[in-house]
Amino acid sequence: MKKIIFSLITLFTLSLSAQIDRMEPPFWYEGMNKSEVQVLFYGKNIAQNSVQVSNNVVITNVTKTENPNYLFVTIDTKNIKAQDLQFTFSNGKKSFKRNFEIKKRRPNSAIRKSFDASDVMYLLMPDRFANGNPNNDSSPELQEKANRSLPGGRHGGDIQGIINNLDYIKELGATAIWSTPMCEDNDKGYSYHTYGQSDVYRIDPRYGTNEEYKKLADEMHKRGMKLIKDYVTNHWGAEHWMFKDMPTYDWFHQFPGYAQSNYRMTTQYDINGSKRDAKYCMDGWFVPSMPDLNQSNPLVLNYLIQNAIWWIEYADLDGFRVDTYSYNDKEGIAKWTKAITDEYPYFNIVGEVWMHDQAQISYWQKDSPIAKIQSYNSNCPSVMDFTLHDVFGNVFNEDRADWSNGMIKFYENFVNDFLYADSNNLLIFLENHDTGRFNHIYQNDFKKYQLGMTIMATMRGIPQLYYGSEIGMAGDKGKGDADIRQDFPGGWEGDVNNAFLASGRTAEQAKYFDFSKKVLNWRKNKEVIHTGKLTHYIPENNVYVYFRHNDKETVMVVINNATDTQNLNLIRFQENIKSFTLGNDILSGKTVDLKNELSIEGKTSMILELK
Amino acid sequence: MKKIIFSLITLFTLSLSAQIDRMEPPFWYEGMNKSEVQVLFYGKNIAQNSVQVSNNVVITNVTKTENPNYLFVTIDTKNIKAQDLQFTFSNGKKSFKRNFEIKKRRPNSAIRKSFDASDVMYLLMPDRFANGNPNNDSSPELQEKANRSLPGGRHGGDIQGIINNLDYIKELGATAIWSTPMCEDNDKGYSYHTYGQSDVYRIDPRYGTNEEYKKLADEMHKRGMKLIKDYVTNHWGAEHWMFKDMPTYDWFHQFPGYAQSNYRMTTQYDINGSKRDAKYCMDGWFVPSMPDLNQSNPLVLNYLIQNAIWWIEYADLDGFRVDTYSYNDKEGIAKWTKAITDEYPYFNIVGEVWMHDQAQISYWQKDSPIAKIQSYNSNCPSVMDFTLHDVFGNVFNEDRADWSNGMIKFYENFVNDFLYADSNNLLIFLENHDTGRFNHIYQNDFKKYQLGMTIMATMRGIPQLYYGSEIGMAGDKGKGDADIRQDFPGGWEGDVNNAFLASGRTAEQAKYFDFSKKVLNWRKNKEVIHTGKLTHYIPENNVYVYFRHNDKETVMVVINNATDTQNLNLIRFQENIKSFTLGNDILSGKTVDLKNELSIEGKTSMILELK
Repeated sequence: MKKIIFSLITLFTLSLSAQIDRMEPPFWYEGMNKSEVQVLFYGKNIAQNSVQVSNNVVITNVTKTENPNYLFVTIDTKNIKAQDLQFTFSNGKKSFKRNFEIKKRRPNSAIRKSFDASDVMYLLMPDRFANGNPNNDSSPELQEKANRSLPGGRHGGDIQGIINNLDYIKELGATAIWSTPMCEDNDKGYSYHTYGQSDVYRIDPRYGTNEEYKKLADEMHKRGMKLIKDYVTNHWGAEHWMFKDMPTYDWFHQFPGYAQSNYRMTTQYDINGSKRDAKYCMDGWFVPSMPDLNQSNPLVLNYLIQNAIWWIEYADLDGFRVDTYSYNDKEGIAKWTKAITDEYPYFNIVGEVWMHDQAQISYWQKDSPIAKIQSYNSNCPSVMDFTLHDVFGNVFNEDRADWSNGMIKFYENFVNDFLYADSNNLLIFLENHDTGRFNHIYQNDFKKYQLGMTIMATMRGIPQLYYGSEIGMAGDKGKGDADIRQDFPGGWEGDVNNAFLASGRTAEQAKYFDFSKKVLNWRKNKEVIHTGKLTHYIPENNVYVYFRHNDKETVMVVINNATDTQNLNLIRFQENIKSFTLGNDILSGKTVDLKNELSIEGKTSMILELK
Repeated sequence: MKKIIFSLITLFTLSLSAQIDRMEPPFWYEGMNKSEVQVLFYGKNIAQNSVQVSNNVVITNVTKTENPNYLFVTIDTKNIKAQDLQFTFSNGKKSFKRNFEIKKRRPNSAIRKSFDASDVMYLLMPDRFANGNPNNDSSPELQEKANRSLPGGRHGGDIQGIINNLDYIKELGATAIWSTPMCEDNDKGYSYHTYGQSDVYRIDPRYGTNEEYKKLADEMHKRGMKLIKDYVTNHWGAEHWMFKDMPTYDWFHQFPGYAQSNYRMTTQYDINGSKRDAKYCMDGWFVPSMPDLNQSNPLVLNYLIQNAIWWIEYADLDGFRVDTYSYNDKEGIAKWTKAITDEYPYFNIVGEVWMHDQAQISYWQKDSPIAKIQSYNSNCPSVMDFTLHDVFGNVFNEDRADWSNGMIKFYENFVNDFLYADSNNLLIFLENHDTGRFNHIYQNDFKKYQLGMTIMATMRGIPQLYYGSEIGMAGDKGKGDADIRQDFPGGWEGDVNNAFLASGRTAEQAKYFDFSKKVLNWRKNKEVIHTGKLTHYIPENNVYVYFRHNDKETVMVVINNATDTQNLNLIRFQENIKSFTLGNDILSGKTVDLKNELSIEGKTSMILELK
């Protein structure tokens, strides 16, 4: 009889336990600064249960929503060491348990270092970089199957492909990888960009497993490299399980239903703006397939905070890039970013703020003097220097300078640095996965690539390269995104051209790679570039001269954007040349005499270490 | 004998008195906030004399410079009523006297009102507006003689010409006049613009006398109008008497001698800039004929302050426009402006800050949140909205809108209003005496003039018209300044076309004038335009909609820059339309139903008073 009863209870428990389809986060960590963790339980009518937790842990809050399939249970982990807890759910006479592990953190996890201007960031799209495991190109669980012949299809690139080529990236001189998102995106088609995620606690099986993602970080750390996760707070994909069964009606922005964003981010601080325009910008959806998350709902906000922290701890991450930063709920995103940086005070986060005005971009950086006008602080330590990107986009075709064209455009970008809280914590880039490729714009004019790369490698800020440009890859945004997101040659079995290997590169690819490698490897240990002061001079005759300098070292950079040779009278630069008499050009290997005029050929640059 | 001695003394006194060639200011006023006045005495070896003053007045300072022809004597006028003082100079046994009058001020002189957004400013160049007195076209004392056949010559326009046509300006609906400078400019040629002044205490005799200038102000005040003086702190002309016999070597910026400004005003706050570039911008000269004043020399600064105050008191001025504001010594100009506004707390001063970035323009406005980043305050209450001018310069040719072209450009100008300390104290203008004329750019397309004038008349800020545009005058900056500074038709005896009179205008001129008159006169008493809040909406299909509103009134402005008729769904504007049901269009006189769609023809606008 006892046996029967026991069996019945076991049966009951099992059948009820099956009601928990999801528990998020799946585990948590001891010794977090914010000791409370809110565990989401999802299962049919889960909210009809009462809940208890083992080991004398305190439940500080139980929240039910209008959807009975959700239960949010907050426990306080203060003073709790790593151990297994058990949640017990009971509904009248039936009860069942669920284990919840509190794990040990890595030593010094909270004070982890992050990326900064000593790094060079390599941006890649995992589907398009290298296919290290052809067995995971499709997944039986997920809708879109691999089809490399489709420009907008899944091509099979994966985590193992990145791991296989870490030495290539390291040799190039990049020290960090920003990969576009890798969590599950179960859209029917066009899912390769993975910005429409359907499960943010799970790496998309077509890229690999959570464990493989963690392995990627480990392999990078072994090489002294850093992994930066592309975090999307603004929206999920329409295939997200929570969009299909919403915890609350306002988990996503509703108008009701769909309304498109007007994308005018300026509405977020415009004192003349209408409330309606501001709301449609922030709460409107990017596209119908990307439901817009409501970060002003505390449950949503906390879910996003915990998910972000969980990934940092789990995969030992070195930084975030945050997608569409300025489209988020303005107060919500500031709280999110603050929560992350409260937990990890040295963690860097770079927000995508795609605007064309320095004051507007500055607004979104932590401690911005511009945002201070409106008593706002986004808390985001780094933003993207999109106005510099605008300059890179056409300046090298401006062979003749005038009041507002030619190298003066660079100069004018940097004169506004005083508007930023920290201009050295800006991401600087020739291009990214959403823009035309530099080598397309300049029709693979190698001289122009050299000019661009020289500036990137020596200017204040954190250089970000986009995969493939270092071997001369081009791509026309005008033809659509697929053209700027082509497969890296050599990433796929059977690729005739393998640019990952010196032996496999064409002469043209080698030219780009070797130049990039030289400049970026030189940069690696140049503290004067990482943290030195910038002093620049008004360009004359399309020549831009600037210095990076500290107490120990001075580097003089000369960029001649004119087509003909220019001779510079160096007296103008006495303030920085001081008593130096020679400059070693790290590009040509030649030594330049600083007592005479400096002569520089058309469309070339010099990086002079002054002696 | 006594007679002889007396005669000898008289002779002596006379001969010594003749040594004082200049005394500046020529008189002063009682009851000034700053009671000290520094009187400059100029004469051969004047500095070899000791000096005393009558009536128990205290001399607080006597300053001699390296040039013995100058003596700066400071007296304190505190508690002194209007009276004649006598300065006594003596050098051993010889002595002589000079009268110095302390005059009575007008009642409430210190708290005089000034121009603001309730005004419409009419900018004119006195040499080119109207020749009211053909007898003063040339002056025997001054080098350049009248020659109306020279585009860059003196044409003979004068103060009497302005007085004669005040009723015309008033009828148009302008309430204030900003005239380009009128103090003596004795350059050999090209002096008509009068920015190279040779005596800043004297009206150029070819414009009239100091008394006539005062009369102009009186005549304007009788009509409820305001006179704004164009003050030049940055430089004088090379014919200035003090440049020919400098009080101190550093009265003007010396390199030594001439160095041209690089005109890069951004150097004034660039944290990456070189000291050299900043110095050459600020201290370099505009052109060789315009010696750059050194406002960091306290004698220079005080001279400029007193001269400015003297003109306000003497001519009863209503405001200043300050030329090349941001080229001045940065600290010096802030002190100058503070001194003026300390003396006249409600006095408005608009600085010329010709930049192309709102943060950069804002920097120079009083209490700017941008300048605050660098703990700077220029104290200048008003600056010029040059970025708006940039928009006016091409937008009406953009018939098709896209993400960044068409009416969105206006919108984007105003989204940055939060960067300004006071966006309603910005001067807004289609053009001025240094730019291409609006009617040239748009080839006298009257519809485009109407669009521009509608925006000017209804937008936040202080509208500024440039003489002649209101009758369709055009002028091509590409052909040189003379083309944009042509004589106003009817200002000269014998002019066949007299546009000052309704009866003299061509049909084309009448069309421009009548439209301008209608809009500007409507504006005159519209408090909602002068001080009401601005709310604007993201333009759609090249149509820009904005509202000016206060507790009492709402005005809706609709500008259709598309070539075809646009139908607006008014639900979008509910936030401002509220329960209003009708709009009276002050342009067409028609009434519009606000419950339905609003239909607006291509390239037209509406100014709707909502009911």
